[in-house]
Amino acid sequence: MKKLIFAFAALLPILVIADHHKEAPAAKEETAAPYRHVVCFKFKDEAKPEQVQKIEKEFAALKEKIDTITDFEWGTNVSPENHAQGFTHCFIVTFKDKAGLDVYLPHKAHKAFVELLLPSLDKVFVIDFVAK
Amino acid sequence: MKKLIFAFAALLPILVIADHHKEAPAAKEETAAPYRHVVCFKFKDEAKPEQVQKIEKEFAALKEKIDTITDFEWGTNVSPENHAQGFTHCFIVTFKDKAGLDVYLPHKAHKAFVELLLPSLDKVFVIDFVAK
Repeated sequence: MKKLIFAFAALLPILVIADHHKEAPAAKEETAAPYRHVVCFKFKDEAKPEQVQKIEKEFAALKEKIDTITDFEWGTNVSPENHAQGFTHCFIVTFKDKAGLDVYLPHKAHKAFVELLLPSLDKVFVIDFVAK
Repeated sequence: MKKLIFAFAALLPILVIADHHKEAPAAKEETAAPYRHVVCFKFKDEAKPEQVQKIEKEFAALKEKIDTITDFEWGTNVSPENHAQGFTHCFIVTFKDKAGLDVYLPHKAHKAFVELLLPSLDKVFVIDFVAK
């Protein structure tokens, strides 16, 4: 009987280690050179705050509508430097690879978002890269 | 004795769950609203490829020299859209918070990098945000 108890005790660290290993490959896959689509907006002076908020909300909602988006984050400019050229909003849309962007750009949900955006938009800056 | 074995068996799921809970706060902390410092460069036409490569290398090396940098990634523009205004390089420098940037900007390693950069630089674009 003591042997059985020792067997249980010996099993414990193995089970805990196995649980850790199960998580490792997924984490590695997520961090492997994703395709970053960096998008900045400057809105027209006459764009109303509620229009800007609607655009922020609808852009974020694309993550639920276009399944090639693997990550999405955004915020408004807080740089203390003066190199933002008047751009106030920055969004980073992440795809697994270029093929993800190729689904996103012509997607009807993205096109509908662009239609919503354009009347309020002064200028846009877009740069994409695959992390080296 | 049987009771002891059952006690071990009952303990197993608790230990595995406890192990998960131990990890949760750390993972949350890492992903909780980091400060993103997005920097784009357009180099002068006369900047030589080896100068640009040196700049890429020295920028990336700041991660080892300034310990408030929590993440660093960069790449060259691959956007099929035409909204990059001639910018060819994008770097995302991540800090835990604004205080991380406040250490970085006046840091001697950053200042040395800017000295290296400026002779080759045509224009720079910088926008920072805290992910919402």
